[in-house]
Amino acid sequence: MVPWLSGAADPGRVHTEGRIARAVVEDARDQVAALLGARSREVVFTSGATEAIAAAVWGAGERGDHMVVPAVEHSAVRDSSARYEVTVVGVDRLGRVDPDEVVTAIRPGETALVHVQWANHEVGTLQPVAEVVAACRERGVLVHVDAAAAAGHVPIDFVALGADLLSVSAHKLGGPQGIGALLVRRGLRLRPLLVGGEQERARRAGMENVPAIVGFGAAAGALGRPGALAEEAARNRAQTEAVVAAATTVTGVSVFGDPRGRVPHLVCFGVDGVEAEPVLLGLDQAGVAAHSGSSCSSESLEPSPVLEAMGVPAERSLRVSVGWSTTDDDIDAFARAFPLVVERLRSLRGQ
Amino acid sequence: MVPWLSGAADPGRVHTEGRIARAVVEDARDQVAALLGARSREVVFTSGATEAIAAAVWGAGERGDHMVVPAVEHSAVRDSSARYEVTVVGVDRLGRVDPDEVVTAIRPGETALVHVQWANHEVGTLQPVAEVVAACRERGVLVHVDAAAAAGHVPIDFVALGADLLSVSAHKLGGPQGIGALLVRRGLRLRPLLVGGEQERARRAGMENVPAIVGFGAAAGALGRPGALAEEAARNRAQTEAVVAAATTVTGVSVFGDPRGRVPHLVCFGVDGVEAEPVLLGLDQAGVAAHSGSSCSSESLEPSPVLEAMGVPAERSLRVSVGWSTTDDDIDAFARAFPLVVERLRSLRGQ
Repeated sequence: MVPWLSGAADPGRVHTEGRIARAVVEDARDQVAALLGARSREVVFTSGATEAIAAAVWGAGERGDHMVVPAVEHSAVRDSSARYEVTVVGVDRLGRVDPDEVVTAIRPGETALVHVQWANHEVGTLQPVAEVVAACRERGVLVHVDAAAAAGHVPIDFVALGADLLSVSAHKLGGPQGIGALLVRRGLRLRPLLVGGEQERARRAGMENVPAIVGFGAAAGALGRPGALAEEAARNRAQTEAVVAAATTVTGVSVFGDPRGRVPHLVCFGVDGVEAEPVLLGLDQAGVAAHSGSSCSSESLEPSPVLEAMGVPAERSLRVSVGWSTTDDDIDAFARAFPLVVERLRSLRGQ
Repeated sequence: MVPWLSGAADPGRVHTEGRIARAVVEDARDQVAALLGARSREVVFTSGATEAIAAAVWGAGERGDHMVVPAVEHSAVRDSSARYEVTVVGVDRLGRVDPDEVVTAIRPGETALVHVQWANHEVGTLQPVAEVVAACRERGVLVHVDAAAAAGHVPIDFVALGADLLSVSAHKLGGPQGIGALLVRRGLRLRPLLVGGEQERARRAGMENVPAIVGFGAAAGALGRPGALAEEAARNRAQTEAVVAAATTVTGVSVFGDPRGRVPHLVCFGVDGVEAEPVLLGLDQAGVAAHSGSSCSSESLEPSPVLEAMGVPAERSLRVSVGWSTTDDDIDAFARAFPLVVERLRSLRGQ
């Protein structure tokens, strides 16, 4: 990315600098498409998953007044869709949506868009996306898959899936902040959210963020090498399993989400009797950066809507995620620190 | 920016990495605010001016069905506003809008937003923003100033101006691609375009692009040093005047826009009898990267709406801009190449 920070020209120009920038953008598009099993022309770069989701909702929104939203969708999906009439579909205790319930929620002639996330961003549970997508396609209803928590961690084949729209974020798979993509199925024409330029084949106006696109492409390219994603996933899974093993040595710790059908790189658990924030601060002092359950906002102390929908304690969750830069020493640091932090906090409360 | 490409955490988190990222984002916000005479809390970072403009239009759009758009506004303003009923206000031959005509176009109780650009992006003409803003404030109508072509090139004092909304783009003032800002006047509450997170005080959801924000802040900080903007502007003006002097040695070259009330860093001219594209390619061979007139899309051969509105030949314009990295040698290269390129093209056509 670094040469492009100072050197990137406008890829829309005919001069040499512009044509070079255009070439690297298209190379990156090929890399992202390859990772996600999409055609290059199906990739529309956005500033991130939040914008991609907003564009999907806005684009579909002219086709009807109603949207179907599983209760565990990301707040970007829930809040964007809330501008329409929404049917919320519940989930089971592991966070899984029932495809039949999604189908039942569809209102023929009224439903503009059905959402289904590929994996949950808080607990990691994989959703039955293939079934939901197939059912929607059968009924001629547009379907959007939020794959921000899944892309780069599990294999994704957009063309084989047959979804209309799919959102991803680069920084969730080792790429840079400020870039993501909306995949738009070939032949599907949607009104664009950002207008006023012909960039991205008139599907997303605004100067291309060349360095970030290059970084996204590089991350996708690294994960797209034969065997790389499986290798990364296996390493991530071993690390999150070690996190779970260490955490559950402590009494009153329960792991949320599907223990089997889940993404490899994140785990979420509840800790009885202590608040999330002091646990996070205690872990931070030990050099471990963890999250509270709810994401993509301030570290709010609001109950997590995901955990509420699952019917598990929603007040005190902790999320641990690993990535390409996570070492086994980091996992050991967590394993040492977590029991001590919880024990200290509980003893302060006299428990 | 470089350390933040690999090291930037989520600024919304309470762990050390998150708090460090938060601190650098807020430092950058202070720098951008200082350059633009705004309060730091008035700065909302976006992915660029296109998104900032779309957010301004969307935010204001719930207050009425009508918008006022001068004919020379950027396509991002024109196209975003086209979702509403629009009154287009014409300009004179130099590209200047008449504040009285803008005021006349306001429909009390119906007009959601009045747009006025600070400077034109194609010809550089400065608009009477202060008069337009004052007239709108007097009438209680929201006013948005697209300052993408002006910020960093002329002094801007958002608080003194009194506008409700103002858009800027980092890459137009020496900062990186993929970042910009919407200034939102203190006390003004608008529905956000991107939702699903509490970032930017719940005014723009989505993970902050920390490296780009840092780069924007650095560029704003460099221009915000005492005397820096005036010095940069003087250098830019000398360079664009040299460009004009060189170009107008060629017969049939006319300079568009206001020769006095203009931004210092860009000039636009028409060349009789030759198409823009071969001129651009000829200049490119000589190492000079120039633009055709219309911007922010492919190098389209469509007539420029800006030049059409000005009533000057709109088919064959050439735009030359200079920046912090432009040397006097670059200007000399243009001065040598331009007459030769035009002469060769004209001789090919037997003129």
